[in-house]
Amino acid sequence: MKQLSEIGEDALIEQLIKDLDQGDDVLVGPGDDCAVVDLGAVSGLGAGADVYQLLKTDAIVEGVHYLPDTPAAEVGWKAVARVLSDFAAMGGCPGNLLVTIALAPDQEVCYVQELYRGLKKCADLYGAVICGGETSSVPHGSAAVISVAGTGWVKKNQLVRRSGGQVGDLVLVTGKLGGSIQGKHLSFTPRLEEAKWMTENFAIRSMMDLSDGLARDLPRLAKASGCDFVIDEASLPCNQGCDAAQAMNDGEDYELLLTVSPQVVSRLLESWSAQFSALPLTVVGELIEGQVRGAQGGWEHFTETS
Amino acid sequence: MKQLSEIGEDALIEQLIKDLDQGDDVLVGPGDDCAVVDLGAVSGLGAGADVYQLLKTDAIVEGVHYLPDTPAAEVGWKAVARVLSDFAAMGGCPGNLLVTIALAPDQEVCYVQELYRGLKKCADLYGAVICGGETSSVPHGSAAVISVAGTGWVKKNQLVRRSGGQVGDLVLVTGKLGGSIQGKHLSFTPRLEEAKWMTENFAIRSMMDLSDGLARDLPRLAKASGCDFVIDEASLPCNQGCDAAQAMNDGEDYELLLTVSPQVVSRLLESWSAQFSALPLTVVGELIEGQVRGAQGGWEHFTETS
Repeated sequence: MKQLSEIGEDALIEQLIKDLDQGDDVLVGPGDDCAVVDLGAVSGLGAGADVYQLLKTDAIVEGVHYLPDTPAAEVGWKAVARVLSDFAAMGGCPGNLLVTIALAPDQEVCYVQELYRGLKKCADLYGAVICGGETSSVPHGSAAVISVAGTGWVKKNQLVRRSGGQVGDLVLVTGKLGGSIQGKHLSFTPRLEEAKWMTENFAIRSMMDLSDGLARDLPRLAKASGCDFVIDEASLPCNQGCDAAQAMNDGEDYELLLTVSPQVVSRLLESWSAQFSALPLTVVGELIEGQVRGAQGGWEHFTETS
Repeated sequence: MKQLSEIGEDALIEQLIKDLDQGDDVLVGPGDDCAVVDLGAVSGLGAGADVYQLLKTDAIVEGVHYLPDTPAAEVGWKAVARVLSDFAAMGGCPGNLLVTIALAPDQEVCYVQELYRGLKKCADLYGAVICGGETSSVPHGSAAVISVAGTGWVKKNQLVRRSGGQVGDLVLVTGKLGGSIQGKHLSFTPRLEEAKWMTENFAIRSMMDLSDGLARDLPRLAKASGCDFVIDEASLPCNQGCDAAQAMNDGEDYELLLTVSPQVVSRLLESWSAQFSALPLTVVGELIEGQVRGAQGGWEHFTETS
């Protein structure tokens, strides 16, 4: 019988979601950064609303996404920021958050207080509200798990999915890639402001956030869009001390990966530099005709080798 | 420095939530079975809507809420049913669910498929939709964690909180209590139908679901309502083979605990037997004047002794 480590995360998710029914109010189900719900389909709520509700859940695990000696406030920041990054990836903004913490009974109370301080700091800064949660114990010696679920909002005409890319689109990334393990993975900025500005002002055809590395995430976007892709490795914006291989594979960049038509790109880049002069926006590749090849490299949750 | 096991779950939660701000749209924040959100406060959605949105997250942990050899489909059922039970406890019904699973890489793929079959079976039966999720690995040897978050709906005039109880209210429970560990904790029925019927037809003043045992949960309800309580142990509806102490303390009953005014109770009991002849509804105590005593017994997550 096969183990998770033999099939990997993407194949697992594909198997799990294939039998799920989609609700009448669910516009986008499993497989994108967030689920998208049309509340106009819910009795009593105005069908004329100009927003969709976004739903997202995410979890970080001790020993996988952070270490036992990582400062608790940074763990909390990361747990919330990851979810906010997914709202950004759809062109949306956060609403209310629910926090589940599963910790060993011998964890210190002040650790949990610091953890919550980090959760709240990130939520406050980006306009999210922690409105509930759950605490549970894990057995002695087990890794702690912190799960954050939340609602968000996106204007109907600013919703961007992974699947909207077209052959010929240029592929862009915000910021610099690689080496996140040096510290950025605990203190990154969810690109809410940047995503809002881009989706308000430009036709962004497809978008997602980079969590598992460009080498793994771009194939996902291309596959969802029914395209293949090329990457110009020489063009990759690398963090200091990183080479192109690290920019491709390190993961946890939490930058935006997006595609636009070639007609849009020069105007976008020009306006971007005026708006966000400190943050690069870089063309790194193109969507091309064909079927996506299997992803190589990047972060794979259940295999042993990465 | 104090550990979680020394202060316990209720004191921990009290400390964590005291600094949280409540959003403008959040009608009920941390401390009840679900958070309650008034979407009328969200731009573009009809302020005239006759429903509130409920938000809930919950997690079950291997070795705490189920065992490594518990059939995976039953684990999945339980993970969803616990959340639905919380929607019932507010007088509501479920909407969309997000499922987070954190499992060791050596877990078998067929285990996860069975787990999802159980999640879906429970969701389908009660009208919930799994619209997204997240998978993560945990380190080898760590307990698996399954977290389910979801949205639900409640008619504004049928919302019941823990805090609505009044001095003189009679305290009732649905079903029978105790001995859930024999199997019921994996296959219980979330009392959605019963809660809907009761809140449609009667003035239910306060309600919650029984997850940690009457001995621990009734003090929570009484405290939220600003009352003390008495329990008539002789009246407790005990599951076969259980005594009153087990009915008080065993936990995981997932029955409804509610209070109504004495003027309502006889009419409620009479209509109930006509409607749900197979399920008892039993008066087990009364809310009285005073401040609630500290909870004794029941299930306490972080202490060693229970």
